[in-house]
Amino acid sequence: MADAAHPLTLACGRSLTSVEVEFETYGELSPGRDNAIFIAPALSGGAHCAGWDATAEERGRAWEATRPGWWDDCVGPGKAFDTRRYFVVCASLLGGCYGTTGPADADPETGRPYGQRFPTVTVGDWVEVEARLMDHLGIDTLLAVAGGSLGGQQAIEWALRFPDRVRGCIPLAASSSLPPMGIALNVVAREAILNDPHFRGGDYYDGPRPDRGLGTARMLGHISYLSAMSLERKFGRRLQDRSDLSWSLAPDFQVESYLHHQAQSFARRFDANSYLAITRAMDYYDAADHGGGDLVEAVRRATCRWLVLAFESDWLYPPEECEKLARALEAAERPVRYVRVPSTYGHDAFLLEVAAVTDLVREFLAGL
Amino acid sequence: MADAAHPLTLACGRSLTSVEVEFETYGELSPGRDNAIFIAPALSGGAHCAGWDATAEERGRAWEATRPGWWDDCVGPGKAFDTRRYFVVCASLLGGCYGTTGPADADPETGRPYGQRFPTVTVGDWVEVEARLMDHLGIDTLLAVAGGSLGGQQAIEWALRFPDRVRGCIPLAASSSLPPMGIALNVVAREAILNDPHFRGGDYYDGPRPDRGLGTARMLGHISYLSAMSLERKFGRRLQDRSDLSWSLAPDFQVESYLHHQAQSFARRFDANSYLAITRAMDYYDAADHGGGDLVEAVRRATCRWLVLAFESDWLYPPEECEKLARALEAAERPVRYVRVPSTYGHDAFLLEVAAVTDLVREFLAGL
Repeated sequence: MADAAHPLTLACGRSLTSVEVEFETYGELSPGRDNAIFIAPALSGGAHCAGWDATAEERGRAWEATRPGWWDDCVGPGKAFDTRRYFVVCASLLGGCYGTTGPADADPETGRPYGQRFPTVTVGDWVEVEARLMDHLGIDTLLAVAGGSLGGQQAIEWALRFPDRVRGCIPLAASSSLPPMGIALNVVAREAILNDPHFRGGDYYDGPRPDRGLGTARMLGHISYLSAMSLERKFGRRLQDRSDLSWSLAPDFQVESYLHHQAQSFARRFDANSYLAITRAMDYYDAADHGGGDLVEAVRRATCRWLVLAFESDWLYPPEECEKLARALEAAERPVRYVRVPSTYGHDAFLLEVAAVTDLVREFLAGL
Repeated sequence: MADAAHPLTLACGRSLTSVEVEFETYGELSPGRDNAIFIAPALSGGAHCAGWDATAEERGRAWEATRPGWWDDCVGPGKAFDTRRYFVVCASLLGGCYGTTGPADADPETGRPYGQRFPTVTVGDWVEVEARLMDHLGIDTLLAVAGGSLGGQQAIEWALRFPDRVRGCIPLAASSSLPPMGIALNVVAREAILNDPHFRGGDYYDGPRPDRGLGTARMLGHISYLSAMSLERKFGRRLQDRSDLSWSLAPDFQVESYLHHQAQSFARRFDANSYLAITRAMDYYDAADHGGGDLVEAVRRATCRWLVLAFESDWLYPPEECEKLARALEAAERPVRYVRVPSTYGHDAFLLEVAAVTDLVREFLAGL
């Protein structure tokens, strides 16, 4: 989506002269090109949001062959984003590690992986790339843009950056900016990566990778996606495959064992430099920047309809924060439906409260 | 408190033949020896709970010279634990790094620091040591035992392990066991230490120390002591000494800068092996073990009066969990006053809600 003749200039001021984007589409674009929905991924998701990918293994993504797309519960025939009616597009993030250009790719200037020399990316940059993808696909206006978490922030950004290109905006479990609790957790996650003995300033691609640091970051991410209630229900203080304590630091409790498992499987499928880049974009995003710091002014730019979904027990993007976005839209006299979905799943609720999300999204899309 | 003739046998089955305990006392023991209160420290506190220590610097604890004891707001003349009336004792934890025997001390068998060869310690072991300290001081019965967080769990353990030696028990911001959220956070904190390039299996005393890993653990600890509200109020998303983003991973936000500062100052005054040991004790403690897993049966052992204080926004030892202890005491027909103190400070509230704590503690102690 960028080459020497059409460089991509980023918010940080630097430019990329070579940007490739991995994307997937589901369903058929209507003759009037008016049924396209863009699904924006969150931190750990990629372009593969639905269905089973038969080519995953040969493309070196063995782990993708073992599970359906990350939002398969909501994207597909007869689902919330019904691919019999809508043309759904999803794309991997710039700076990530799922096919779109990122730190593991070769810097054209040196021929070696960018590593930490990859420019700082922002939610705004992602939406620029996504808009170029829509140009490429011949889609002028999106029926809707939707996403959860960091994907929800891309949805918000679409509506503010390209108001003429969006008819409906659906941010789930996302507020206009990440509260300081989230920034604080991201600092800890990044420290775990930066201090890994194999990190070596980000130039680890020709040797052992900082898997344990990345895994530690992922553990903390996972904790922030769950709630105290879901941890209690899933694990409590139960021991894992043992009746007594080990009197050591080895994983005794189910919750420890679960986190170690998540850490290991994540480290196999993610890149530490991408984790650093994407969490930084999460910290930096503030939709109010479009209004010089005033959120009401910022959202006044939008001309679409909004469905803002918050989830009761989410403590990463808490409902109170999501509600601020809804109130700002109301203050700016923009059409918004705000729903605080009851849930005990925490932030992950946007993926797990399938029935509620399906009903709300389906009704909203039908009304556009 | 232990020597070859009187070894200390720990819950893990191992014994220590040499245990020294650092303790401080405040006020005067009454002729009837009936006014003693033991204050149990939490993770990062030591024996120095009140006043200014004029000898700190010469004892190699420069940082202690710059601040009063960790509970100075509540321990002293005219304060909640009024040292004009009560004889207050506080002692550093076994396995810690504030003078009581711990991993940094020489193993008598090898002459080298224990490091990770220091035995696993538990809340029960701490209370055993504390009881030996009371024997040494000639104190048979404590008027009260009090503490916040892990200190509160020692208070609970005192009441269950030595029911005849405790007249009043005051756990603050402490439940009968750590919920899985806390265990999960401890796993992450320990991973950050264990993966530090300088950790070297715990044998780092003759070289660079795992300061960054320990600092990362401390950052996460700090986050768990605060609340979303206190983070919002203290820092929001404000930048630190700058008007623009740095477009880098350097600390831009006040909350980042604060966490880095806390990390560095903690690493100067704490030992990573102790952090591992103490967080493991935190994971392992379950007061219900005294009743074969049944908390009501467990607390039936106690004969003292109880003041159980929970703090509204505490998410490490949440009020709902503290309340379970109070309900168990009621079910066992034990005299308990349970108060859920309104606060937005999170877990740290037990140190910061001085007025409320002072009133409640003073009234409780007067009634004993």
